[in-house]
Amino acid sequence: MKVGVLCIGDELLKGAVINTNLGHMGAKLLEAGIYPQMALEVPDRSEDVIRALKILMKETDFVLVSGGLGPTSDDLTKPAVAEFLGRKLFRSEEAVKAITERWASMKRGELPLHFLSQADIPEGAELIPNHYGTAPGIFLQLGEKDPFPGKRIAMMPGPPSELNPMFDLQVLPLVKNALDGKLFSFLFHIAGVGESRVEERMQKIIAAFPALSVAYCAAPEFVKLFITSANAETIQKASGMIRREFEKELLSDETKSVAEEVLLLLKEKAFTLSLAESCTGGLISQLVTNVPGASEVYSGGIVCYSNEVKNRLLCVEETILREHGAVSSQCAGAMLEGLKKAFGSTCGISVTGIAGPGGGTPEKPVGLVYIGVFCGENSHVGRYLFRGSREQVRARSAAVALNTLRCMLKGYDLSCAGSIAFTCPRS
Amino acid sequence: MKVGVLCIGDELLKGAVINTNLGHMGAKLLEAGIYPQMALEVPDRSEDVIRALKILMKETDFVLVSGGLGPTSDDLTKPAVAEFLGRKLFRSEEAVKAITERWASMKRGELPLHFLSQADIPEGAELIPNHYGTAPGIFLQLGEKDPFPGKRIAMMPGPPSELNPMFDLQVLPLVKNALDGKLFSFLFHIAGVGESRVEERMQKIIAAFPALSVAYCAAPEFVKLFITSANAETIQKASGMIRREFEKELLSDETKSVAEEVLLLLKEKAFTLSLAESCTGGLISQLVTNVPGASEVYSGGIVCYSNEVKNRLLCVEETILREHGAVSSQCAGAMLEGLKKAFGSTCGISVTGIAGPGGGTPEKPVGLVYIGVFCGENSHVGRYLFRGSREQVRARSAAVALNTLRCMLKGYDLSCAGSIAFTCPRS
Repeated sequence: MKVGVLCIGDELLKGAVINTNLGHMGAKLLEAGIYPQMALEVPDRSEDVIRALKILMKETDFVLVSGGLGPTSDDLTKPAVAEFLGRKLFRSEEAVKAITERWASMKRGELPLHFLSQADIPEGAELIPNHYGTAPGIFLQLGEKDPFPGKRIAMMPGPPSELNPMFDLQVLPLVKNALDGKLFSFLFHIAGVGESRVEERMQKIIAAFPALSVAYCAAPEFVKLFITSANAETIQKASGMIRREFEKELLSDETKSVAEEVLLLLKEKAFTLSLAESCTGGLISQLVTNVPGASEVYSGGIVCYSNEVKNRLLCVEETILREHGAVSSQCAGAMLEGLKKAFGSTCGISVTGIAGPGGGTPEKPVGLVYIGVFCGENSHVGRYLFRGSREQVRARSAAVALNTLRCMLKGYDLSCAGSIAFTCPRS
Repeated sequence: MKVGVLCIGDELLKGAVINTNLGHMGAKLLEAGIYPQMALEVPDRSEDVIRALKILMKETDFVLVSGGLGPTSDDLTKPAVAEFLGRKLFRSEEAVKAITERWASMKRGELPLHFLSQADIPEGAELIPNHYGTAPGIFLQLGEKDPFPGKRIAMMPGPPSELNPMFDLQVLPLVKNALDGKLFSFLFHIAGVGESRVEERMQKIIAAFPALSVAYCAAPEFVKLFITSANAETIQKASGMIRREFEKELLSDETKSVAEEVLLLLKEKAFTLSLAESCTGGLISQLVTNVPGASEVYSGGIVCYSNEVKNRLLCVEETILREHGAVSSQCAGAMLEGLKKAFGSTCGISVTGIAGPGGGTPEKPVGLVYIGVFCGENSHVGRYLFRGSREQVRARSAAVALNTLRCMLKGYDLSCAGSIAFTCPRS
C-alpha cells in the first residue's frame, strides 16, 4: 500500500510556516514500516486542492490531508474533497455537539456562528474526534461509485498541536489497519554514535534476520533506528541483539531526548544539576527546561559570556583566564568548581569554546570547545573540535555535554559519549 | 509565471529532516512578489523524480529542484532530469576544476574519485557555482526540442547551508529575470502587533495604492509584511506610509530578529545586558547568543529555576518568595535588582512564570508570566497571561521580554511592546 500526503495552506508556500506535519507523519509511519511515496503542498485554492487530490489518488492508496478544516473562508478542504468525489456536504449533528461542547469548555463567550461550518462533512464520511481544537477530522473509504474505489482519505486540521495527537492516536491506526499484512516495529534512539557507524554495527544483525527491514534517521543528538517486520518474533529477537550491541548508547524506550534521559536518571538517583555555559549561551539550559518537570532536579545555571562573569560568579581565577584563556581545559575545570560552590548541586556541566564565525585563531580555531562534567565524585574535562556553522557547533557541544553526563550517571566509560574527545589532564 | 518546487530525499518523507528549503525559497520568492503554486517531496528514486518533474513541468513554468546532486549512489537528480529531457550527461571541465579546488581548500586529504560525478551535468545546462560545498547547481532553459519548450529548471544541493546562499544570490535573480515584468518589493518586520491588527492598520495604505500587492506572515516574535508592485514609485511611497504607521513597531531594515535589533541598539549606546530567567529557562539567552558578536554587549545570565537559586544568586529575599511566591511582580522586580548587583549591567531582563503543563493553580494559572526589564534608570514589571503549550508560553514570554527592552532602548512607551501587559505597581 502506498501512502500520499497533501498539506494545504498558503503559509507553507510563502515560507511563513515550515511544514512540520509531513515530518511528523513520516516519522510515525516509519515506525509502522512505511513512509509516504509522495507529498504535496498547495495553496488554499479549490482548483489547486482538487488537482493535488487527483495526482495523489492516482499515485497512492491512502491520502493523508492536513489543513483547511477551519471555519474561515480560506478553509476549503471539505468542499474541494466533496466536489472531487461528487458527494454533498451535510451538517453532522454529532460534530455540532462536539464543537459546541469544546467551545464552551474554552470559556471565550458565545460560539461564533460560522464556527459551525466545521461540522459540515461529506456524505458517507466518518468523523475523527478532535480533542485539541474545534475542527473534527474526517475519514473516507471510497466505494464503487467514487472515482478511486477502495482508496482512502483522512483529513486532519493543520495546526500541529491538533494534527499530531489526532494522527498518532486516531489516523495511524487506520493506516495500519489498511496495510496488507500486520507489521511489527520498534524504534530505538542511539546517542553518541554517527549514522554510518550505526549502519556498520547493524550489519551482523541484518545478516541474522534477512526479513527485517531497517531504517536510520540522524539527528544532532542521536540516530533513530527503526526496525520493522511482518513477524513479531523477528522484532523481538532482533531487538534483543540491538539492545546488546548498543547497550551503552541506547536511550530508554520511554525517553525522546538525551536531556529527558538525563533528567530521568537524575530523578532516579535524587541528584541535582546545574550548568555553566559560555559558548552554548543557554542552549543546554533551554533543552533541559524544555522537558516538563525539569524543575524537580534542575536548580539553575549561569551563562558566563564574559571573562568578568566567569571570574565573578564562577570564581574562575584571573590567572587561569590570563595564562590559559577562557577557552581552555583549565577554565572548563574551574567553571565546574565554581558551579559546585554556587549551586551545591550533585552534577554539573561547563562548556567554553569558540562557536564562530568570528573569534578563531590558528591555535584556537572556530569549533574548539572544552566540555567539563562532574557527577558526584567523578569529573571529566574533554577537548573537542566540532565542524560546521555557529549553530551546528553550539548544537553539537550541547549534545556531547548532555551525553557525557548520561554516560557518567550510568557508570559507563566515556568512549560512548560521542565525537572524539581528548581527555584533558586536570590542572 | 508559475513557480513549482521539487524537494528530493527519503529523509524528508521519513521525518528525519524537516523540509526547510521550501519555506526558505517561499519567503524569498515572496519578496519578489510571487510564491510557489505547488511543491512536491519525493524519495530518492529515479521513477519518482521523473514522475514529479512531469507533474511540475505541466503545472508550472519554473521548477526549483533541491537535493540529489551529491556524489553517492542515491544522488540521482541529474540522471533523472537528463533521462526526462532525453539529454546526455557530460563531465564539465569547469565543474571538475571547481570541485577539485574546493576539496583542496577543505584539507581533507585526497579527493575521493566518485566525487567527480558531481561534475556531470546535462548537455546544454549552465553551471551555478557552489561557494559552500562541492556539488554545483545547474540551470536549464528548455528549447524547442525539449518536452516543455520555454520552461526552466534550476537544480540546487539539498543541505540548507549550501542551498540558501545559492538560491538567494544566484537562483532568485534567474527567477526574477524570467518574470513577465520587473517587480519591486520590500520586506518589513513588525514586532509587538498581531497579524490581524497589522492587516487592519494596513487598510488605509492599501486603499491609497490599489496596485500594491500585500502579504503577511506571522512568526512568534513579529509579523513579516511584504509589499510588491510593478511600479518603483508605488513601493517608495507606500514604504513611507508604512514607516509612519508602524514607526514604533518596525525593526530596522538590516535586522532579522528582535534579539538582533536589541543587540544593535545596545551597541549603539555602549550598553550591556544581563538576564535572569526562570520559566524561559535559558531561551532568551539562547536567542541572544545565537546572534554572532553577542559577546560585545551580553555579559551573561542566571537561569534561576529553583527558589534557592533566586535567593542565593539573585538575592531575592525569602520573605518575597514566601509571601508573594516566585511567580509574582515582587519576585520579578527583586530579580532585576539582583541582576544589577551580580552583573553591573546597564540593562537587564527578568522572567518568572508558569510554562505548564503542570504547576498551575486557580490564582496562578498556567501561562501567567511576570516580565521585568530595566534599561538605565528606567524599569518596568508587567503581568501577562499567555495561551498555548509549554513551548508557546516560553516563546511568547521571550518575544515580549526582548521587545519590551527594544521599546525602552528606543524611548517608546510600552504600549507597543506586545500583548496586553498589566503594568505592576512597584513593590
